[in-house]
Amino acid sequence: MNTFGQLLRVTTFGESHGPAIGCVVDGCPPGLALAADEFSHDLQRRATGKSRHTSARRETDEVEILSGVYEGQTTGTPIALLIRNTDQRSKDYSNIAAQFRPGHADYSYWQKYGIRDPRGGGRSSARETTMRVAAAVIAKKWLQQRFGVTVRGYLSQLGGITHQGFDWSAVEDNPFFWPHAAQVPELEAYMDALRKSGDSIGARVNVVADGVPAGWGEPIYGKLDGELAAALMSINAVKGVEIGDGFAAVSQKGSEHRDLMSPQGFLSNHAGGILGGISTGQQISASIVLKPTSSLRLPGATVDTSGSAVEVVTTGRHDPCVGIRATPIAEAMMALVLMDQALRHRAQCADVGEVPPRIAGSVDG
Amino acid sequence: MNTFGQLLRVTTFGESHGPAIGCVVDGCPPGLALAADEFSHDLQRRATGKSRHTSARRETDEVEILSGVYEGQTTGTPIALLIRNTDQRSKDYSNIAAQFRPGHADYSYWQKYGIRDPRGGGRSSARETTMRVAAAVIAKKWLQQRFGVTVRGYLSQLGGITHQGFDWSAVEDNPFFWPHAAQVPELEAYMDALRKSGDSIGARVNVVADGVPAGWGEPIYGKLDGELAAALMSINAVKGVEIGDGFAAVSQKGSEHRDLMSPQGFLSNHAGGILGGISTGQQISASIVLKPTSSLRLPGATVDTSGSAVEVVTTGRHDPCVGIRATPIAEAMMALVLMDQALRHRAQCADVGEVPPRIAGSVDG
Amino acid sequence: MNTFGQLLRVTTFGESHGPAIGCVVDGCPPGLALAADEFSHDLQRRATGKSRHTSARRETDEVEILSGVYEGQTTGTPIALLIRNTDQRSKDYSNIAAQFRPGHADYSYWQKYGIRDPRGGGRSSARETTMRVAAAVIAKKWLQQRFGVTVRGYLSQLGGITHQGFDWSAVEDNPFFWPHAAQVPELEAYMDALRKSGDSIGARVNVVADGVPAGWGEPIYGKLDGELAAALMSINAVKGVEIGDGFAAVSQKGSEHRDLMSPQGFLSNHAGGILGGISTGQQISASIVLKPTSSLRLPGATVDTSGSAVEVVTTGRHDPCVGIRATPIAEAMMALVLMDQALRHRAQCADVGEVPPRIAGSVDG
Amino acid sequence: MNTFGQLLRVTTFGESHGPAIGCVVDGCPPGLALAADEFSHDLQRRATGKSRHTSARRETDEVEILSGVYEGQTTGTPIALLIRNTDQRSKDYSNIAAQFRPGHADYSYWQKYGIRDPRGGGRSSARETTMRVAAAVIAKKWLQQRFGVTVRGYLSQLGGITHQGFDWSAVEDNPFFWPHAAQVPELEAYMDALRKSGDSIGARVNVVADGVPAGWGEPIYGKLDGELAAALMSINAVKGVEIGDGFAAVSQKGSEHRDLMSPQGFLSNHAGGILGGISTGQQISASIVLKPTSSLRLPGATVDTSGSAVEVVTTGRHDPCVGIRATPIAEAMMALVLMDQALRHRAQCADVGEVPPRIAGSVDG
Repeated sequence: MNTFGQLLRVTTFGESHGPAIGCVVDGCPPGLALAADEFSHDLQRRATGKSRHTSARRETDEVEILSGVYEGQTTGTPIALLIRNTDQRSKDYSNIAAQFRPGHADYSYWQKYGIRDPRGGGRSSARETTMRVAAAVIAKKWLQQRFGVTVRGYLSQLGGITHQGFDWSAVEDNPFFWPHAAQVPELEAYMDALRKSGDSIGARVNVVADGVPAGWGEPIYGKLDGELAAALMSINAVKGVEIGDGFAAVSQKGSEHRDLMSPQGFLSNHAGGILGGISTGQQISASIVLKPTSSLRLPGATVDTSGSAVEVVTTGRHDPCVGIRATPIAEAMMALVLMDQALRHRAQCADVGEVPPRIAGSVDG
Repeated sequence: MNTFGQLLRVTTFGESHGPAIGCVVDGCPPGLALAADEFSHDLQRRATGKSRHTSARRETDEVEILSGVYEGQTTGTPIALLIRNTDQRSKDYSNIAAQFRPGHADYSYWQKYGIRDPRGGGRSSARETTMRVAAAVIAKKWLQQRFGVTVRGYLSQLGGITHQGFDWSAVEDNPFFWPHAAQVPELEAYMDALRKSGDSIGARVNVVADGVPAGWGEPIYGKLDGELAAALMSINAVKGVEIGDGFAAVSQKGSEHRDLMSPQGFLSNHAGGILGGISTGQQISASIVLKPTSSLRLPGATVDTSGSAVEVVTTGRHDPCVGIRATPIAEAMMALVLMDQALRHRAQCADVGEVPPRIAGSVDG
Repeated sequence: MNTFGQLLRVTTFGESHGPAIGCVVDGCPPGLALAADEFSHDLQRRATGKSRHTSARRETDEVEILSGVYEGQTTGTPIALLIRNTDQRSKDYSNIAAQFRPGHADYSYWQKYGIRDPRGGGRSSARETTMRVAAAVIAKKWLQQRFGVTVRGYLSQLGGITHQGFDWSAVEDNPFFWPHAAQVPELEAYMDALRKSGDSIGARVNVVADGVPAGWGEPIYGKLDGELAAALMSINAVKGVEIGDGFAAVSQKGSEHRDLMSPQGFLSNHAGGILGGISTGQQISASIVLKPTSSLRLPGATVDTSGSAVEVVTTGRHDPCVGIRATPIAEAMMALVLMDQALRHRAQCADVGEVPPRIAGSVDG
Repeated sequence: MNTFGQLLRVTTFGESHGPAIGCVVDGCPPGLALAADEFSHDLQRRATGKSRHTSARRETDEVEILSGVYEGQTTGTPIALLIRNTDQRSKDYSNIAAQFRPGHADYSYWQKYGIRDPRGGGRSSARETTMRVAAAVIAKKWLQQRFGVTVRGYLSQLGGITHQGFDWSAVEDNPFFWPHAAQVPELEAYMDALRKSGDSIGARVNVVADGVPAGWGEPIYGKLDGELAAALMSINAVKGVEIGDGFAAVSQKGSEHRDLMSPQGFLSNHAGGILGGISTGQQISASIVLKPTSSLRLPGATVDTSGSAVEVVTTGRHDPCVGIRATPIAEAMMALVLMDQALRHRAQCADVGEVPPRIAGSVDG
């Protein structure tokens, strides 16, 4: 349905071109300072219209806190956040309503519900991810304050271009979340040519969490990696999720992959900080692929609702690479999963037996 | 926790070397014929000891149906399945209990719970997947009878070896679930050399479902691909999940990736049969990577529970490639997800409006 | 938490004196006609300020539909409803904030959260029930259209006064939801005297559903009566729930209580339409008690947050009998339970075996 | 479905005359000492065949622990408990199978599922409650060890007979769980006459928890009283639930009902230890009614599965007052609710703000 999480529960609502989008964040512990202006930073990061490389839709994305905060602090009651849609252009959607855009959810929604809101993709629009990012502002802050956990991401591949260097400080200084400043002109040239061609391109985003204590995650079906996979795969356009070395492990030997341990900590982190579905105290790392946008200026064959062949050309405001704006969304999903697991861990960890001694920090944690 | 699914709920229990493993399957509709001997086929497929390439542990894996079936038919009440462990060798585990095997869940479980059952990995052992396969026998049968859905898998890569041909009929005729018979000798030679070396290797397994109607899957957080990702990632040793083209989409253009449509159906299936988290009526396809076993005869550095450095050598019965036996487990998880989604769809699909007309079958569905 | 239901999920948010209250209704099937003005009837029925016998707070309770409806029809996506609070008087709450009102949730919330919104009871205020009534407008309409189910309630006892006659048509014609018009003057006199005294009184509300098909309800822990009990007990001030004959069954004989059956239907309905947690096709009936309001003009002993003894006198706008306005709320909770169970039944009922023949309608169904 | 609880999850399975009944207890923290013989005390208390006043069915009810316990301690993994049915008499059920016993779940199950196990009531038999009592042995022990909470119950009314005195020490010394020893001969005479008559009688059971800290319970839809109501109502034959004063509050004044507070604690406990759905630190109290058994030797009108009128006489082994054995079951459900809420509270209570000072113990807590 439209609720994410077990003990931190985020329910989102709203359509791309409806009056508003919003969410209810239930389960946030009391006593966390929270103000409406804290949401703007991450919402700006994912916002449309950040650069010429993303959609031209301009939303102010102003968050109103409707409940759950009293005198600047969370009270333990549900926190409702509301954002009015301001740039939903009124136009004639009857054309789109009658045909299925290839690669979009038009056909599958129609098959499921027999009715759909065609305006900008309706509920299936990536506009919904705005509220994930908003909800995760709360999760990120709580994780940071309570455990010193930080969640960060970056664009690690754009089409065939991979990053040739890595510096966290570069990531926030370019519109791509790219970790190597020297390549930014190359990316811009690539995107300009792509936009001109009317086509789109796929991308890869990496996201990591530092400072996660050992012990988070619930075997067998609430594993930390399992829930990360579901959370990341639920982002629009994502077609694959890796934890740690991911698919590279297909051709790895066990002697190479397994992370040896020493009194000073783990000697490597091929596992991505998760063993048996439970965090090891190392850095948690995941990587996702985002398919190329299906909304192209290039014409494509499809059918209309009566089953007849038609040709579709998308003229709206669309990102030629949805992966570019996906970094804050991937961070958001990882943060929401981690806060949920932190609360679950608190309920279920050892309380009768002794607390186990921990080995020292990991090599790369 | 230990329950999987929303409307088809499978709760598993049991440790590798405890008295028994079992599960409770809740939510199976009434009227499905079910007998104890129907479980043996798939349990044999995943069983240890199937060939010299897998673990030497030999379990009869005889299923007892404890409830939920009356006069050979399910009644709608919970179906409890029980398998007694028969080949759990009694030996001294104090050695293993005091140290953390690298790449295993020993350390993370210990950090979470402060106590753990060290015998054969306890709860974190892949022995638990036996009950997933058993539960999925029910799901597979129901899906087949009710919707004509079939779920099948195969080993698509073993270390660096990829399949050079494809024939479903070959898959069940070799101990690797390999789809190209001509390569089986090569695989056997590779595995023999690997076993001799004391090392292990990763693998890739593909799993597909044919016959799934359009409309299954729940946006936004219960998407079919999201739940498949969680289900497949929850299998022991899995480090990555792809739907459809998966990570190949990183460098694809939109004009290449998006699946065009015609009155005769979809013209391609890069999406893996899922758009917007909902099935399109095409074949559902997923691919997973299984890391190489961490239990090696090669010594490795680790620490003991007092934090001191020790060297560990695994001498037990272990698969040098856990991916080989993962095919039926991957099938099981896909089948459980699909049956759960089928039941959820039944509750939530259109019932007031008209049923939408469907376009004809897909090219490759 | 703040979400009710399994397949029809209602998440409410908002505090008594916060900017707004609202809810997200998730799981409503597509194709149901829905407009904002359909909510006013039931919201008026529960509204404050309906008569001199209820609180003087005046809210317009105008519902805004934020999502889930397109061109006047539900789309299957979450329906968010918003009501702005307009009559939350700004005043100094520091006095109330520092002391615990007897019989209210002040002390228990403070113990749980260590922080609370004291304005009008904050989250624990009955203002929250406004959104239950709003959500249930959707449930009532769906139940009526899809199954012909109607849910109705009435005030069956006010303090020591019991109804001496019964006529459904009388219920909506007086401010008490009283089923016997001739007694209304007596009730008014009683309430006037009570209000003058500064005290309050308890009440009993009955609620019934007609037209519910046999087979709704989930054994063993999702029984229809169990879920009704939870739903009704969750209403502010409710201290007891009965199904069918309820506590009268303590001194009944089995030969008196059990409902015999004939080819024309059940011969009685002591069970309240539920056997084994599943509906029988008869009228579903429940009864609840609402405790007398704890907010009195009569002074009472309590403590402040420092643990010192203080005397409290409530001067705000409060109902001397909260039971009077509880009828639409009780109806709402029954309707939400029934719609949720209807959706769950659809997922889990017999589909492989034959549909059982039904016996004819019940005596009083 | 068949799972109870959120963080302490109990899944039960099994039919009255199937091979076994059992449960899986998921979410119990690690480190709790647990042995198979600890279950016998409470299972004996609820067992059939305890006296001539209860059913003659004799079960040994020996519990086998299948998982979740290692070297005498819980490990945090699911605890599976199994009891083989030993006294399920094989006889011809075709007669019962074809007709609906009045007051039983025969008809409603048949309408829901279209198929049912008629042997001894199948899944709807009170035999299922055996596993609730078994699971609650774990909950009671954990609550006692971790918080000093005790849960106790007694039979407070048998038909028209109410207890004329109260002494906890008397409760366990008679087969009725009656709190006043002097009345036991009267009860025995009453039951002997009742049994002779072939009829049955209703009863009332009270259950209380002492030592529950303030702050347990989740507003708005997971209230402690709401969940107690659902849990108690889910017990076979229960038709009503009261918290604290319950239905007596209908005719109480607010000045009488509201519990005043002093620095020494609450001055009364009409609320039953719960305000706003959250525990106050006082004794938690609930009361339930159990309807008279519907299985009578007196003939009754019913229909068969073809819809024809038939007369039914129950000849099996049945309790003339099911309330007599309900005391340990009611205790079990209260204990399971409390442990679940304790775990949930641990996850969600204040952790950023300060812990609030608590006022001294209550008058009757």
